[in-house]
Amino acid sequence: MREIKKHSVPGFKAGAAQAGIKKAGRLDVALIFSEAPAVPAGVFTKNAVKAAPVLLDMLVAKKSHARAIVANSGNANACNGAQGMKDALTMANLTAEGLSVDTSDVFVASTGVIGNAMPMDRVKAGIAALPGALKSDGWEDAARAIMTTDTFAKICGVKEKVGGKDITVLGIAKGSGMINPNMATMLCFVATDAAVTKRALRKALLEGVEESFNRITVDGDTSTNDSVIVLANGVAGNKTVDADGADYKKFKAALGAVLLKLAKMVVKDGEGATKFVEVEVAGAKDTADALKAARSIANSPLVKTALFAADANWGRVICAAGYSGAKMDPDKAEVWFDRVCMVKGGMGLGRAAEVASTAVLKKAEYKITVKLGVGNASARVYTTDLSYDYVKINAEYRS
Amino acid sequence: MREIKKHSVPGFKAGAAQAGIKKAGRLDVALIFSEAPAVPAGVFTKNAVKAAPVLLDMLVAKKSHARAIVANSGNANACNGAQGMKDALTMANLTAEGLSVDTSDVFVASTGVIGNAMPMDRVKAGIAALPGALKSDGWEDAARAIMTTDTFAKICGVKEKVGGKDITVLGIAKGSGMINPNMATMLCFVATDAAVTKRALRKALLEGVEESFNRITVDGDTSTNDSVIVLANGVAGNKTVDADGADYKKFKAALGAVLLKLAKMVVKDGEGATKFVEVEVAGAKDTADALKAARSIANSPLVKTALFAADANWGRVICAAGYSGAKMDPDKAEVWFDRVCMVKGGMGLGRAAEVASTAVLKKAEYKITVKLGVGNASARVYTTDLSYDYVKINAEYRS
Repeated sequence: MREIKKHSVPGFKAGAAQAGIKKAGRLDVALIFSEAPAVPAGVFTKNAVKAAPVLLDMLVAKKSHARAIVANSGNANACNGAQGMKDALTMANLTAEGLSVDTSDVFVASTGVIGNAMPMDRVKAGIAALPGALKSDGWEDAARAIMTTDTFAKICGVKEKVGGKDITVLGIAKGSGMINPNMATMLCFVATDAAVTKRALRKALLEGVEESFNRITVDGDTSTNDSVIVLANGVAGNKTVDADGADYKKFKAALGAVLLKLAKMVVKDGEGATKFVEVEVAGAKDTADALKAARSIANSPLVKTALFAADANWGRVICAAGYSGAKMDPDKAEVWFDRVCMVKGGMGLGRAAEVASTAVLKKAEYKITVKLGVGNASARVYTTDLSYDYVKINAEYRS
Repeated sequence: MREIKKHSVPGFKAGAAQAGIKKAGRLDVALIFSEAPAVPAGVFTKNAVKAAPVLLDMLVAKKSHARAIVANSGNANACNGAQGMKDALTMANLTAEGLSVDTSDVFVASTGVIGNAMPMDRVKAGIAALPGALKSDGWEDAARAIMTTDTFAKICGVKEKVGGKDITVLGIAKGSGMINPNMATMLCFVATDAAVTKRALRKALLEGVEESFNRITVDGDTSTNDSVIVLANGVAGNKTVDADGADYKKFKAALGAVLLKLAKMVVKDGEGATKFVEVEVAGAKDTADALKAARSIANSPLVKTALFAADANWGRVICAAGYSGAKMDPDKAEVWFDRVCMVKGGMGLGRAAEVASTAVLKKAEYKITVKLGVGNASARVYTTDLSYDYVKINAEYRS
């Protein structure tokens, strides 16, 4: 597998336009188009309150084939009642007309403020401009058009030999709310020219999301709009990948790599984030417990403020593991900052360890390892610190 | 029931001293002493990592009688291994000697930084000074001595006629980490001269804590040191209260009122808090679901930053209810700010409602009501906003 620098996928085009939903001069509608019918798969928010386009997409994802994804930023089209549903359908309709495909072949995604009516005049004009903006190398534009509080566009692609042919997997994503995994919308669109059965694509997507986006967001604790959508159009002409065997493994690895890279970019762009921190919990009874403890540490505001201050406050780390509900032996617990052991046998190792730990905590990227002392299972999640700027960004988002 | 202004309880004395654990010139050890053997009851942290004094207190709470509570601030005596256990026992021993009671009659409580060895020379000197500092009106001193990041001392007492006599219930508390309910230590000590059976005292305490401190902190998500301890010495000479009947109800109401008042003080003193907000969730399938949704809203950093900004961002409120796991009907959901209805039928009511909501959000205290539209159960929790100062306080706590 190798990462590609030139972002394109055979048989796909992408593009973006300015509809004026966001401030003037910023791309805010995007289109991804597959020139051949593509097998679709999707993973959507588990929030009881789902935005209108998500309800639509859950139907499209069940189909055997789809052709396009249209997306807008600046308005989430959530909590807009029946009108929101109509507007999402109108977006699908107009896109389908412009591409001469069926309305049911079009995924719709929205991200932005909740509960404001969609400015449909502007949205319509934007969508009308999209087919003309499609280019094989239009992915950077599309990635920019779906940004909200993101500070950089997120794009990543790989090539891999699968079923006798070179196949490409390319994805774009938006999302920067990792510090609060609860609600900032995350969108991710992936295109591949691999020939894959629906079953294999769905399986690879679920497994890939579990190891990537679900390691930065808490299961079920998702926004009204979170969506990961993948389209596989088979243009590469490889032997069709089914849901097991060597080809499946290679395809899954390629898709998984793209998803993980994009998920990490979302964390790095966390609102106000100044650190990128991997939290690994080992020595757990089982993976579920390891994940529970890792998420508890990664989501603790007290841990996160200490990371911001580069304060080796291991008490907060071990306390967060303690209240996670994961089984642990407090007298065997260990805490490591990169390769510095700060806590052994449940006790701090003193001044020298703290000085060494503080040096690690001053880095922009590092790893915290916590050992629970009761088993062999482990899990890792990715997080950031909690800074003044997080409060600033989120207090002033709408003002 | 009436609130008392003069803080004392017949048959109890309290006092404090400067041990030098905190900065010089600040009270940092406290003692509560019952002149007669008192029935004890306690509720302690569910954190898997428990501080040494908590492990000790869990044993004392099981006894039929106890006499005293000794406490220090500035050091949590948590994650200190076997030495921590020895130090907690030494504190109980020295206190027992000074009071001429049995070591097993003494509760020990500590709060402060985790993982630092107890400065026992200073602690010992402090404890030696405590018996001489005992006064019937020494409760304010004791309340001040257990403060850490608290900005004001928390004390509250009531009188009630129970079993033919006037009985007093008086409590002190510390804790100011409500914005992060996960880890800031909460201590609460209550004294009453009521005669109560052990069974009745334990039942009233559990019920009272469930409606107060458990509504500001998430079950199981507690610090290494959280403790609520109550001593009932029977000096009032009332007919002994048992675990049911009219006298039980009145006693429970008095104890519950003290616990709720103290719990609310802890919220109001939330680190960096500028608002005091009651979150009520109604229309839920059952109480558990109502609590789940209420806590999800009360703990959401995105909701809290919006409260700080007085931004009527109801989308974040409804979204937090949505991901809580509570059953809800998004198309019937309502959001109210005090008496202003902002969301009805799952949709925002527009500009005028937003202007009226913003006026409510600018107040120092208000209520958010969310209706889930699926049943008749309700529950309320108490929370604050998330301000710049929260990050500042917690980033700089140890530096």
